[in-house]
Order: sequence, then structure tokens, then C-alpha cells
Amino acid sequence: MKTVRDLGEFGLIAKLCEDLPACGDDCAVLPAARRDRYLLFTCDPVIENIHYLPETPAYRVGWKAMARNLSDIAAMSGLPRYAVVSLGLRPETPVRYVTELYRGLRAAANRFHCEVVGGDTAHVRGDQFIVIAMLGEVEKHRLVRRRGARPGDVVFVTGPLGGSFASGHHLTFTPRIREARWLTAHYRVHAMLDLSDGLASDLQRLIEAGGVGFALESAKIPCRTTLNAALTEGEDFELLFTVSPRDAASLRKRFHEIGRVIPKPVILLDDQPLRIHGYDHFRSK
Amino acid sequence: MKTVRDLGEFGLIAKLCEDLPACGDDCAVLPAARRDRYLLFTCDPVIENIHYLPETPAYRVGWKAMARNLSDIAAMSGLPRYAVVSLGLRPETPVRYVTELYRGLRAAANRFHCEVVGGDTAHVRGDQFIVIAMLGEVEKHRLVRRRGARPGDVVFVTGPLGGSFASGHHLTFTPRIREARWLTAHYRVHAMLDLSDGLASDLQRLIEAGGVGFALESAKIPCRTTLNAALTEGEDFELLFTVSPRDAASLRKRFHEIGRVIPKPVILLDDQPLRIHGYDHFRSK
Repeated sequence: MKTVRDLGEFGLIAKLCEDLPACGDDCAVLPAARRDRYLLFTCDPVIENIHYLPETPAYRVGWKAMARNLSDIAAMSGLPRYAVVSLGLRPETPVRYVTELYRGLRAAANRFHCEVVGGDTAHVRGDQFIVIAMLGEVEKHRLVRRRGARPGDVVFVTGPLGGSFASGHHLTFTPRIREARWLTAHYRVHAMLDLSDGLASDLQRLIEAGGVGFALESAKIPCRTTLNAALTEGEDFELLFTVSPRDAASLRKRFHEIGRVIPKPVILLDDQPLRIHGYDHFRSK
Repeated sequence: MKTVRDLGEFGLIAKLCEDLPACGDDCAVLPAARRDRYLLFTCDPVIENIHYLPETPAYRVGWKAMARNLSDIAAMSGLPRYAVVSLGLRPETPVRYVTELYRGLRAAANRFHCEVVGGDTAHVRGDQFIVIAMLGEVEKHRLVRRRGARPGDVVFVTGPLGGSFASGHHLTFTPRIREARWLTAHYRVHAMLDLSDGLASDLQRLIEAGGVGFALESAKIPCRTTLNAALTEGEDFELLFTVSPRDAASLRKRFHEIGRVIPKPVILLDDQPLRIHGYDHFRSK
């Protein structure tokens, strides 16, 4: 009997998306209150012993849970608006833990003018979880999807990659909403996503969405620790985006160029096919 | 150190809502695409060994997870529009289990013209969960909240209560969207909610929201099993609503009258104060 592990995270999502035409980006894109805008709708879980540890400060757990969703909105160049929060808690959890967790998630939300408007709680027997659903908005002409990268495009990332768990970055990161908004105010961004599963996995998703490939230069990839960590570890929550070579010139001062878009749907690292994979929720470890 | 169990589900929610003015109904109420409407936004978890068992057919688990959210939209007289799904899965779960679960949740969504537009998966070590976030819409003049019940109002429920777990009703129930829409098309409904934690707990919530009380007649409460079950067990997902005595006359044919709204914020059963409590996620069992 085939299990979720056999199929892997991306295989499973592909299977579940078979009949769901709207799938495949960081957020769902829906009609909005204003005709010149889209509504963005996303939902992301954070689970104890997977995304954080029992000893992680509750404030940081809340921050991370909210910031992950904000990062999904950033990936489509949106502005966050509203969030609802579902908590799965053990009955013996101190009330102070929960109020600290809420303080963290509201601090992240407030920073980007996102309003927490409701939620629900339920009890769990084992690992606790926080699931946040978020609504955002984006002007139609500023929406950026995963598809849209063109051969010849220059590929950028907004910050250093890898070592996010070891350094604690995954608990303190700033969602790249301001960077995404600045980019789409001044440039034509062809494709974008937030790096959550490591460069190798996330570029694979861009290949599936856009039908193009990527040629990376290892010397250019900004690494917090090692190149391997940058390619495989995930939880960086930096944005990866592609623009035309003409737009790229003035972006090199501000962001990290890491390679080019190529016509063939493969990942090359220094002209060699990349054989390693990023994080897969059902296969890794 | 005070724990979540000490505070109880409703105490905890009240504490978390202290600084959140939008809290307190089944859904958050937001500005919508059309000026004459509100957007409804809700998020509800379904957890293995709490809301369903490992041996529960996956199709039914999916149905229940979606139907609970649809029921929250029904409670405010809304129409569901879009859903996103977060799954927490063990890696050894058969793929067929997940596709069956999706078939169930999409069947419930399709029945009420709700579109599943995205989601995410993550792995868990213990109990699995499904968290669905839903967007709905309601015409401003048809929105019904928990507050708004008036002394003298007649209290109705849409169907029999109690014994939902024993009978399997909690896995197969039909969210009362059509009933709610019919009601608000023809009557002025003053207050409404969906019964998820048993009459005793849910009426307590209406008291907190509206400052009025309830006088119930035990002989009139429609019980699937016992009166005690109807008062305490929960997971019925019938609607409870109040209307003026004038409107009540023609509703008695279709729904179950169970009592009256009184000025004092207490629950009376056959003129005696009710001393039992419904389901509390952090206290019960």
C-alpha cells in the first residue's frame, strides 16, 4: 500500500491538486473588494517538534507561525489584511505560555498591519500546533506568481540561505513584505516564491509551475553556513525572484544574484545537474 | 501555575479575545467585494482521537472537517465561497486515506458551492489533524450574530440534539445553510449560533454575547437520546436561533421551539437554574 512517505510532500500535493485548478502558488488568488485587486488566501501550520521545540520561547513560536503566513503573502507581492488562528493545546499547558504565544503572533501581525480577527482552540493529546489562515490583497498589476520566469531572466534572492534552524533565524525572521512591495513598485518581477524548503526543492517547484529551468553559480549563492545547507535545509523565508537582464543591473546593489533562467526544465549548479534535494515533509529524516 | 485546563476553553478564549474587538461570533465579519455584503472568515480544527477515531472512514473525516466550517458560515446566515486546507499527516499514512479524506471534504464543499482553492501539508508524529479555513459572504441585512436576542423572543433549534457521537451524526450531518438562508429570507432572526458544545455551553455563550438569559422547557427539547445528552454532549451542528413571538407562530411547523429569552442572564430549565455544563475542550473527560 502506497504511503504518504512513498509519494513525498510534493507528489502528494500534486495528487491532491489534480482537480483543483486554483492550486500551485503560495496563496490562492480570488476576486477582491476592489476591481483592480485580488484577494490572497493562505493557511499554514506550525507544529511542535517539527517547526519548533517544546523549549522554544512561546513568543517566538507565535512570531514564527504568523511570519510564515506573512511570507506567503509577500511571495505574491501582497499586503496582509486579516488572520484567524486555530490552536491545538494540551490541557496542562500554562495559560502564560498561550498568552505569550499570542503576544508573539500579534507582534508579527501588527508590524505588517494585519489584524487578528478570530480563531478557535481545541485540545490535543500530543504535539501542539498553531494553524493560521490569512487574507491579503494585491493590486492586479502587481501580482507575482511562481510561473512567469523567462529564459535569460536573472535570478535573485533577498538574503542569505541555510543554517536557519541552527542560527535561530527561523524563529526571528522578518517576512519580506517591504522588499516585495518595493520590487513590484519599481520593476517587473516575472516569478517569485518564498524559500521555505531549501533552494533545491523550491526551484523544483518553480520548474513545475513555469516549465523553465535554472543555472546557478555556487560562488554567488549567499550562504549563512554551507552551500549544502543553502540548497537543502529550508525555513529561510527569503524571497527568490526573476527579472529581465535590463532590470537586473540596478538590483545587484540591493539583492543577491544567484543565477539565470534557462529554457530546459532542470537545475544546473556550475553547469552540472543538481542531484540533491531540499526538505520534504514526508521523506526527510 | 495556572494551566489551560484551569481556565477552561471559554475562559481561555475570553482571555485571548481581551484585546481583539472582532472576536465572539462563529465567523469574523469583514468588508466584502460588494458594498451591500460582508465577508465571513472562519477556521476550525478537526483532530484525530478528539473529533474522530483512527478507524473512522477517511471520507467521513473529510466531510466532517468541511461541514464544521460550513456550519460556522450557516450560523451567520452566510453563503460559503472558498476554503483552504491544512493537513497534519503521519508519513506512514496510506495515500488512499488522504485521497478519500479529500473526496469527503470536497463532497461537502461542492454540495454548498464552496471551492477548495489551496492548502498545505506537514508531517506530524502523533495524532493527525485537518484545519480548514473558510471564506463566505452574507448580505448586510441578513447577517445574524450571537448577540441580538431580546427578552420575550422564542428560541428554536433546527433538529434533534444529543447522541451525536453514539449515532454517528457528527460524521454525516448536513450544515444548516439552506435553513439559515430560508429563515433570513422570510423572517427577522435576532440571534443565532450553531450548537457544537451542547445546549448548556452554547447558551452560556449567547448569554455572554447578548446579556440576556434563557428559560427552556425540558419537554419541548428534541432529544436524539436523553435530555442530559442534549444539554451536554455537543457536536450536533443544528442551529439555535431566536425570533419575535409574532414570527414564531409560523415557524413552529418547521422547527423545534425549546423556550424563551428572559432578561436575566441565566439558563432556567423548567423554571429551575441549570447546574450542568456542556463540553469544554480543556476540562471535559
